[in-house]
Amino acid sequence: MVLAVAGTAAVDALSHVRAETLAGMTVVDVTNPLDFSGGMPPSLSVCNTDSLAEQLQRSFPQVHIVKTLNTVTAPIMVNPDAVGGGDHTMFLAGDDEAAKAEVLAVLTALGWRDVVDLGDITAARGMEMYLPLWLRMFGTLGSPMFSIKVVR
Amino acid sequence: MVLAVAGTAAVDALSHVRAETLAGMTVVDVTNPLDFSGGMPPSLSVCNTDSLAEQLQRSFPQVHIVKTLNTVTAPIMVNPDAVGGGDHTMFLAGDDEAAKAEVLAVLTALGWRDVVDLGDITAARGMEMYLPLWLRMFGTLGSPMFSIKVVR
Repeated sequence: MVLAVAGTAAVDALSHVRAETLAGMTVVDVTNPLDFSGGMPPSLSVCNTDSLAEQLQRSFPQVHIVKTLNTVTAPIMVNPDAVGGGDHTMFLAGDDEAAKAEVLAVLTALGWRDVVDLGDITAARGMEMYLPLWLRMFGTLGSPMFSIKVVR
Repeated sequence: MVLAVAGTAAVDALSHVRAETLAGMTVVDVTNPLDFSGGMPPSLSVCNTDSLAEQLQRSFPQVHIVKTLNTVTAPIMVNPDAVGGGDHTMFLAGDDEAAKAEVLAVLTALGWRDVVDLGDITAARGMEMYLPLWLRMFGTLGSPMFSIKVVR
């Protein structure tokens, strides 16, 4: 299942799925905890010592949350070649190795060639806290059609 | 002046400089608000709706704070060619256009070729909130010798 809803609605959205359906399911969490209640730019509803992905994993221990794709806009998620000839980086985080392998296979099928597994679900903090920089670049570049490449 | 101290000591450090020395000075803020008091990994002592750079600018309105270079380790700051042939991105934020032009000239002299001016000092929130992702990549890659390129 791909969880692609407003970040602040993510836990609620998943709560509407039957428990027996969720059991053992890999949930690809592409959400960001953007809070627009204070106006623009949005702040994050959770950050620093917790993350939306961790909240989801705690709320639904029977699923395997895999955080990924939240660092790019939707058209790039499914077509990384849309910018820079696809030469950029995607991140991955989650507690279950088999679930991450499954998601990595999907990312590879979508055309992602540089996927960095950042480890357990707490790595989602960094992935979500990248959003304020992303938002600022969006404003500066005037387009959401960009991504970042880890140059090493 | 380049302010390169522990983030949590930044405001205090600048408070020891004579006010008449600071007047009108461009201060390059390369610090990060890393708080190690809760153990590893560090959290940020300020984030989301404020930043260390904004705290500095508010505390010392007579200086021009320019946030930059906080997204890379020291050897890359002064030698961007150290990774990826120098083909990666540096960010810049600050309220004073002349001060930013001055800092951009220094960055260019150091070899930075892709510098993105993200606007006023509030953009430092995003630059500082990138740190948790940086720290996680450091752990995954086993080296701080990396940077990010904005692919667009």
